[in-house]
Amino acid sequence: MENKPKISVVKIGGNVIDNEQLLNTFLQDFSELEGYKILVHGGGKKASEIAEKLGLQPSFVEGRRITDKSMLEVAVMTYSGLISKQIVAKLQQLKTNSIGFSGADGNLILSEKRKNTAIDFGFVGDVISINNNLLSALLSQNIIPVFSAITHDGNGQLLNTNADTIAAEIAISLSKEYDIELIYSFEKKGVLLNSEDENSIIEILDFEKFQLLKEEKVIHSGMLPKLENCFKSLANGVQSIIIGNQNVLKSKIATKIKL
Amino acid sequence: MENKPKISVVKIGGNVIDNEQLLNTFLQDFSELEGYKILVHGGGKKASEIAEKLGLQPSFVEGRRITDKSMLEVAVMTYSGLISKQIVAKLQQLKTNSIGFSGADGNLILSEKRKNTAIDFGFVGDVISINNNLLSALLSQNIIPVFSAITHDGNGQLLNTNADTIAAEIAISLSKEYDIELIYSFEKKGVLLNSEDENSIIEILDFEKFQLLKEEKVIHSGMLPKLENCFKSLANGVQSIIIGNQNVLKSKIATKIKL
Repeated sequence: MENKPKISVVKIGGNVIDNEQLLNTFLQDFSELEGYKILVHGGGKKASEIAEKLGLQPSFVEGRRITDKSMLEVAVMTYSGLISKQIVAKLQQLKTNSIGFSGADGNLILSEKRKNTAIDFGFVGDVISINNNLLSALLSQNIIPVFSAITHDGNGQLLNTNADTIAAEIAISLSKEYDIELIYSFEKKGVLLNSEDENSIIEILDFEKFQLLKEEKVIHSGMLPKLENCFKSLANGVQSIIIGNQNVLKSKIATKIKL
Repeated sequence: MENKPKISVVKIGGNVIDNEQLLNTFLQDFSELEGYKILVHGGGKKASEIAEKLGLQPSFVEGRRITDKSMLEVAVMTYSGLISKQIVAKLQQLKTNSIGFSGADGNLILSEKRKNTAIDFGFVGDVISINNNLLSALLSQNIIPVFSAITHDGNGQLLNTNADTIAAEIAISLSKEYDIELIYSFEKKGVLLNSEDENSIIEILDFEKFQLLKEEKVIHSGMLPKLENCFKSLANGVQSIIIGNQNVLKSKIATKIKL
């Protein structure tokens, strides 16, 4: 068997972004993580707060939130500006040399405006390709890429993109050349059998069990696309996936997703 | 004489940032500029507009504007977020592979909070050092660095920094290894003998003439620090400096600054 170098692709969610103390602890753990690593961050509540202060009204079509031009600007400012640069400044303080990227930077993530749906979601992008060559070059120079969930279409248009999906697409694309561990940090200790009970963590979730729990409605709503992303990633070359809370890098308490 | 590779360091001001048509034309010209190049952009009016919409009151101490925590956040969002990523997306459309950086990214520009002044200007940084090694590595990978005027102090603090100064400091630092042409684009065709007459461009401005025009108050207010930056840059190794308007890359109408 070939021996590929390892990369940890770590996604942090809004619960960490929104709490400076949690963020500081998480970044400390992240900076201590050995080997090549990539961070993908969500946006948290900040963008909604700023949009509200700017007097923007959220747009909905058929109950689904859409990203209009003004909301896209707020997303770009908040995710690729404020949050990205604050994370990078904190990582520099920890002597972890990082760069905050949107997908437009270095043409790292090319996407296309979402199409073929009944609803026009506005400036929302679906990932087409990842620039593996540049990512490899950066990693080999000991630079930690930090991604915000903004991509571009190659024609000058920035697009809002789901951060879970970005982490998965980066993981899949790099899995051709690297042994990838994909780590999702969210608000729970793992995938729970009972969402009320933090101790009901499913230690290992394989595709058969997932199908069963989906039918039984134990796994539902927001967890469904997250886990579907995971199984797609595993089917497309990602070696290992774990889902845990903000302590996952240290505690190793998490749900391990397997095919 | 040694033969150093050439880099054009180009600074664009608010008048170009604030006008999408001017910006598009400028970026087209910039993308056609041959050889290694670096772009530094100011902020334009957008940050003030956003601050006003957010209900922030500009802070002044003894008549001087200061950057408080909220204004710094707006500057980071606007300069390193919105403007930076919009410029990069447009350059990608022109097949000019660029990355938008703050000084925190890759520890590219280390600064310190301004000190030893009678007034505390708040979160304003004075440049300490430029990461030449990373800039050289990026340029050699055909990546065009695009800098917003935000730096960091290495201790987790982002700092607002003058864009003219950033361009000058990058130029000076890289002049050890490269032959640098520093190009300032602002609202006039060059340094004017009569600020009312666009055709009164001083073709060549040397230090002696500058001193004379300063004494005669022909050069005053905002032009003084800009030109002092220029003479400092030339005295510290920068090969060539020109100042012109948004067409300077094509028209070559400009004031040439000489020691």
